[in-house]
Amino acid sequence: MKSIRNVYLKMKTLEEAREILFDSFPPSEILSHEILPVPEAVGRVLSKSVTAKLCSPNYHAAAMDGMAVKAASTYGANESSPIELAVGKDAIPVNTGHVLPENTDAVIMIEHVQELDDNRIRIEAPAFPWQYVRKMGEDIVATELLFPQNHIVSPYCVGALLSGGIFEISVYEKPKVVIYPTGSELFNWKKSNIADLKPGRILETNSYVLSSLIEALGGRFERHETLPDNLQTLTEAIYNAVTGDAHIVLTVGGSSAGSEDFTKAVIEDLGEVLVHGVTMMPGKPVLMGRINDKPVFGMPGYPVSNIVAFEQLVGPLLCRFLGKPMEKRRTIEVQPTRKIPSKLGVEEFLRVKLGKVKDRIVAIPLPRGAGSITSITEADGIIRIPNHVEGLNENETVTAELLKPLSMIKNTIVIVGSHDNTLDILADQIKGNREGIPISSSHVGSIGGLMALKRGMCHVAGSHLLDIEDGSYNISYIERFLPDMRVKLVNLVFRDQGLIVLPDNPKNITGIEDLAREDVRLINRQTGSGTRILLDYRLEQLGMEPEAINGYDSEEFTHMSVAVAVLGGMADVGLGIYAAAKALNLDFIPVVTEQYDLVIPEEFFDSHNIQILMETIRSEDFKQRVQALGGYSTEKTGEIV
Amino acid sequence: MKSIRNVYLKMKTLEEAREILFDSFPPSEILSHEILPVPEAVGRVLSKSVTAKLCSPNYHAAAMDGMAVKAASTYGANESSPIELAVGKDAIPVNTGHVLPENTDAVIMIEHVQELDDNRIRIEAPAFPWQYVRKMGEDIVATELLFPQNHIVSPYCVGALLSGGIFEISVYEKPKVVIYPTGSELFNWKKSNIADLKPGRILETNSYVLSSLIEALGGRFERHETLPDNLQTLTEAIYNAVTGDAHIVLTVGGSSAGSEDFTKAVIEDLGEVLVHGVTMMPGKPVLMGRINDKPVFGMPGYPVSNIVAFEQLVGPLLCRFLGKPMEKRRTIEVQPTRKIPSKLGVEEFLRVKLGKVKDRIVAIPLPRGAGSITSITEADGIIRIPNHVEGLNENETVTAELLKPLSMIKNTIVIVGSHDNTLDILADQIKGNREGIPISSSHVGSIGGLMALKRGMCHVAGSHLLDIEDGSYNISYIERFLPDMRVKLVNLVFRDQGLIVLPDNPKNITGIEDLAREDVRLINRQTGSGTRILLDYRLEQLGMEPEAINGYDSEEFTHMSVAVAVLGGMADVGLGIYAAAKALNLDFIPVVTEQYDLVIPEEFFDSHNIQILMETIRSEDFKQRVQALGGYSTEKTGEIV
Repeated sequence: MKSIRNVYLKMKTLEEAREILFDSFPPSEILSHEILPVPEAVGRVLSKSVTAKLCSPNYHAAAMDGMAVKAASTYGANESSPIELAVGKDAIPVNTGHVLPENTDAVIMIEHVQELDDNRIRIEAPAFPWQYVRKMGEDIVATELLFPQNHIVSPYCVGALLSGGIFEISVYEKPKVVIYPTGSELFNWKKSNIADLKPGRILETNSYVLSSLIEALGGRFERHETLPDNLQTLTEAIYNAVTGDAHIVLTVGGSSAGSEDFTKAVIEDLGEVLVHGVTMMPGKPVLMGRINDKPVFGMPGYPVSNIVAFEQLVGPLLCRFLGKPMEKRRTIEVQPTRKIPSKLGVEEFLRVKLGKVKDRIVAIPLPRGAGSITSITEADGIIRIPNHVEGLNENETVTAELLKPLSMIKNTIVIVGSHDNTLDILADQIKGNREGIPISSSHVGSIGGLMALKRGMCHVAGSHLLDIEDGSYNISYIERFLPDMRVKLVNLVFRDQGLIVLPDNPKNITGIEDLAREDVRLINRQTGSGTRILLDYRLEQLGMEPEAINGYDSEEFTHMSVAVAVLGGMADVGLGIYAAAKALNLDFIPVVTEQYDLVIPEEFFDSHNIQILMETIRSEDFKQRVQALGGYSTEKTGEIV
Repeated sequence: MKSIRNVYLKMKTLEEAREILFDSFPPSEILSHEILPVPEAVGRVLSKSVTAKLCSPNYHAAAMDGMAVKAASTYGANESSPIELAVGKDAIPVNTGHVLPENTDAVIMIEHVQELDDNRIRIEAPAFPWQYVRKMGEDIVATELLFPQNHIVSPYCVGALLSGGIFEISVYEKPKVVIYPTGSELFNWKKSNIADLKPGRILETNSYVLSSLIEALGGRFERHETLPDNLQTLTEAIYNAVTGDAHIVLTVGGSSAGSEDFTKAVIEDLGEVLVHGVTMMPGKPVLMGRINDKPVFGMPGYPVSNIVAFEQLVGPLLCRFLGKPMEKRRTIEVQPTRKIPSKLGVEEFLRVKLGKVKDRIVAIPLPRGAGSITSITEADGIIRIPNHVEGLNENETVTAELLKPLSMIKNTIVIVGSHDNTLDILADQIKGNREGIPISSSHVGSIGGLMALKRGMCHVAGSHLLDIEDGSYNISYIERFLPDMRVKLVNLVFRDQGLIVLPDNPKNITGIEDLAREDVRLINRQTGSGTRILLDYRLEQLGMEPEAINGYDSEEFTHMSVAVAVLGGMADVGLGIYAAAKALNLDFIPVVTEQYDLVIPEEFFDSHNIQILMETIRSEDFKQRVQALGGYSTEKTGEIV
C-alpha cells in the first residue's frame, strides 16, 4: 500500500524563500547599460552617477523684472529721503532671466520703482547686494554630482539633468522576463470564439496579468504561446530561455505536484530546485529554481496565487536586479466586520473591501479562494495574517495594505445586505457622476444587512423582508432588529420574484406547488435572505412542509448563483429575480412582486455622498436602465417609505 | 508721476483658483472614446461599464488534484472504518481545472487518498458536497457588472476581463495637452552646444518636465518649438491650439507682468482671463483663461513654479477630464530642524529633506527659490505652509507630503555639517551598494553639524575644525559642544585647502598675505565653518587684521560657491579645496593640509546602515575615486581617530 503523498516536504516561509532567492541571485552586473536621451528615460534607473556639465544659472541673472543697480548707490534711501537714479546709467531695466549688467549687483523690483520720467527713477528703500539676483551656479554647479547611480529618473529629474547640460544618460536595460504558460486545457483568447469554449477549456489569462505586472515594475516581457503538458516540450522551452537573453524565466501552471505538473522535473534535470512550496495562501505551489545561473519560477496556475507569487517573489527580484527597492504598499489600521479563522503555519493574503463608517475603516472579507480573480480586482486592501496567527477577531484592529488610494476608500458608500442587480447599475451611475463616488456592495442577505447596520459596518442596507403577518416589507424587521436606530427607508425598486427553470421548462414547473414533486430538485437561498422568507411564507400559505421538498437544504447566496445552479443542472428550479434568469437565458415563472428598499440611518442620510446617492436613484437615467433589465418597476423608486 | 504697479490685483487662493477652474470646465463628454484590446488598456479609464460575457469557471471544475466522487458515497468513512471506492467508477481521477465528471459532486485531495491498487482507493474521511469544486460562475457570472464606468484598468483587471470573455474595452482617449514654451532667451538643448551657451541664454527645460508630468497622469502632449516674445506669433499659436484638437493649452513663461509677458493680453483678446496670480509660492504668476471653451494656462517660467502650477491646477483638471481622482500624496508627521518663517497670505510649498533620527522624522529645508530645480529633485517631501500661518517653529510637528517612499526615507543616513565633495562620492558608492542606502547631506558648516548632532537632527556630522591651541582637529570642539554625547570620530580624508584664483592667477596672489592688498577682493566662508576658522587662524599667525581685508564680510556656504564667486568675478580669491578649483578650471595655491572627519554618535555607530557606511568608506573603490579627484589623501580614511 502506498503511503499518502506529501508533495511539499520542505516548504519554506515567504521570508525564507525570499532570502534563498536573494542569496542565489546577487544583483551585481546582471543588466547591461543603455544610453537614452533624458526625456525618454523617465522611470528608468541610472546605471552610473551623473555629474553636471553646466552651471545653472550659467551667469548672474536678474531674478525679478525691475532695475539692476549697484547696491552701494542705493544705501540711505528711505521714504523721507528717496534716492533718484539715472536710467541707463545707475539703473538698468532688466527682466527676469536677463544677464545682470556689468557694475551692478542687485535688482530692485519694478513694483518698488517710481518712474519719474523716461530717464529717471526714484526709490524709497535701499537694495542689499545680490538682492533678486540668481548667482551663477546657485542651483547647479558644473562637475558636482547631480544624481547617484541607482537613482530613479523622475519627471523633475528631467529638468535638473537638462539644466545641468546632461542630454543623455546611462540607465540599466529593462530586465527581460520570458513567460511560458503551460497546460493543455488552456486556450488563446485571441483565437477563441467564446461560444466554442467547451467545458474543460480555459482561457489563458495569467500570462497577460504577469506581462502587465512586469511592465509596471520596469521590466519587459517575452510571452510565448501556451505549451501543452509535455515534458520534452517544456524542457526545450526552458532550456532555450535560460541559454538566451532572458533574465528571469516564468512558467505558469504545472508547478504543483499533479500527474501533469512537469516544471519541477525540468528544473531538477537542467539545474536545481531552490524552493518548492511556500507557506502562503494563495500562492503555495510556487516553485523556484536556478538553471544556468538564471532564476526560473514555476508560477501557480490559479490567478490570485499567480499574482501573489509574482508580487512577493518575482517582483522583488526584478527590482533588485534594477537596483531599486520594491515599493511597499501604504498600510492603514482597519477592523474586520467578522471573525476570520485562518490556518496556523500559513501566511494568508486576505482580500478585503474597505470603507469608512463613522470613525473607523471596516474590512469586509472577499472570497478567499485562489481561483477568484474578482476577489483581487474588487479588493481595496489586503490583510496579511501571519503564519503564527490563527485568525482575526471581529473588530480587532489589524493592518491592511492598500490597493486603492485612501481618499477613494474614505469616499466609498458601503452597502451590505440582499443582492439585487440594480445595485450594480446604481454603482455604475454614481461612479460616472462628476464626483466618481464608489459603491462597495456585499451580499449577505436582507437580515445580514440589518445586522451590519446595527454593528456599524455599513452606511446602507439593501432589504426586501416580507412581514408575513401583514404583507408589509421591512418596517417590522427594522423595528425588531434596529430598535434604537433612527433610519430612513428608501424604495429602490419593485421586482418580480419567480421560479427560474431551464429553457422551455423541461420539467413543466408552473408554481410553488410543483416543488413538492419527487422529480423536482430545488436550489434554495440562505436563511435570513428575503427570498428564503418569501418562499417559506408561500409554502406556509399553501400548507407545504419544507421537509417534503427535494433540495430545500441546498443553499446559495445570490440570485445569480441560483440561476447558475439551474443552468448547471445542480437543481431544476430556484426562486429568484427575473434579471438573473434573463442573464443566463433561463425561463422565468413569476410568482410575486416584492418591494426592495434601502435602509439608511439618519445619521448618514444628510451626508454629501448619500445625498448624491439619492439624486442618482431619483434620476431618470437610473430608472430607465432599471426598466430595461425587465422584471422591475420604478414607480416608487427614490421615495421615502 | 506714475503709481507703483500692482500686477496681480485680484489674486486668488489656490482653493479659489481650483474652484473657478472646475466650474469653468465641467468634465462631461470632453473626451472621445477608443476601443483597445484589454492587455493594452492597463492604466486607462473605462468610458463605459463592462459586463461579463462568460462565466468563470465556465463549468463545474475540480479545484484540487485528486479523485472526483459522489459525496453521498463517502458518508460514514473514518479511520476505523474506511471506505473503498472503485477507480473509474465511484472515484474518477481529476487534476485541478478538469471538468467535474458526471454524477460526481466533490473532489478528494490526492493527499487524502490511499491507492490500494490501480483499481481501488481507500478513504478515511467523508467528502461533503461540492468540496474542492469550483462551481460554474463562482468567480464571474456572465451578464453581471465586472467594472463600472470610470474604473481604472489595473493589471489585475486584465485577468478578470479576459476571464469574463471581454477582449476589447472602451476607454477615454488620452487628453491632449499642447505646450508652447515662450521666451526669446530660450535655447533648444537638442540643437545647442554647451560651449556656445552664452550668458543670457537659457536651455528650455520646462516643456520636457511638463511632458513627463502629463504622461504620468495619463495624458498625451504636443510640444512645440519655443516661440519668441512676440504678441502676434503667440496669438496665432494659441488660436491654432484652441481651434484644433487640444483639450488643454499651456504656454510656458510670459505669464507674469513684465514688459515681454504677452500671454495675458492674448487670452484677453481671444477669450477671457479666469485667474491671474495665485497666492502660492512657488507658482504665483500662473495665469488661467478660457478660449473657445478650452482651458489655456500661462505657466510660470521658473522650474519649480511651473511644476507646482501643473500639479495643483493643470493636473487635477486633466484627471477630472479622465473621470479619475488626482492621487493625493502620502503624508507623514515631521519636525523641522529649525524655525522657518513664511509670508502671511501665501501658501508655501516648502521642499524638505527628510530622515529618521531616533524616533522622529526630521525635516531639513531646501532652498526656497522657485528657480532651484534641485530643490525639488533633492526633496523627500513638501511641507505646505498655509496662507494664514506665519511660519513653522523648530520641532513643531507638521505634515509633509512624501515625494519618495517612506521606506527609503526611513533608511536614509542623514549627514549634516561641513561640505566636502567626497561626501558625494560616498553617497554614490553607498547607493550603488546592494542595499541602495541613500545619504542625505546638508551643508551648514562644521559647527553647524555638531549642533545638529546635539539637537538630534542627524546621524553623522562632517567636521574639519582646527584647534588653534594645539593644531588638533575636531576633538576639542566635540568636547566643548557635545560634552554629554559619546561619539566616534572617523577620518574621511585629508585634503588640501588653498587659495582659489582665476586661471593664470591674473592678480598674482601667492599667499594669505596678499589678502591685505587693496586690489584684492576676498570671498569668505560663513562663520562657524572650518575653513573660516582656518583662515582666521592663519590671519592671526600672520598678525593680519580681518578689517583690513577687502571682502572679508562677503560669505558663501560651500567651497563650490566660493569657486563660483571667483569665476564670476565677484571676488579675486577665496579659500577652499582643490576639488572646487579644479571643477571650474580655476587655479589653486595650496595653503595647508587639513583633516576632515565624520562625527558619529555611538548610539548610531553599530546600526546596520552606519556599518555599511563604514565598509563603504574603507573600501578601495571609494579611496581610489577620492584620490582621482586630486587634492586629497586617504592614508587614514576609515580609521577611528
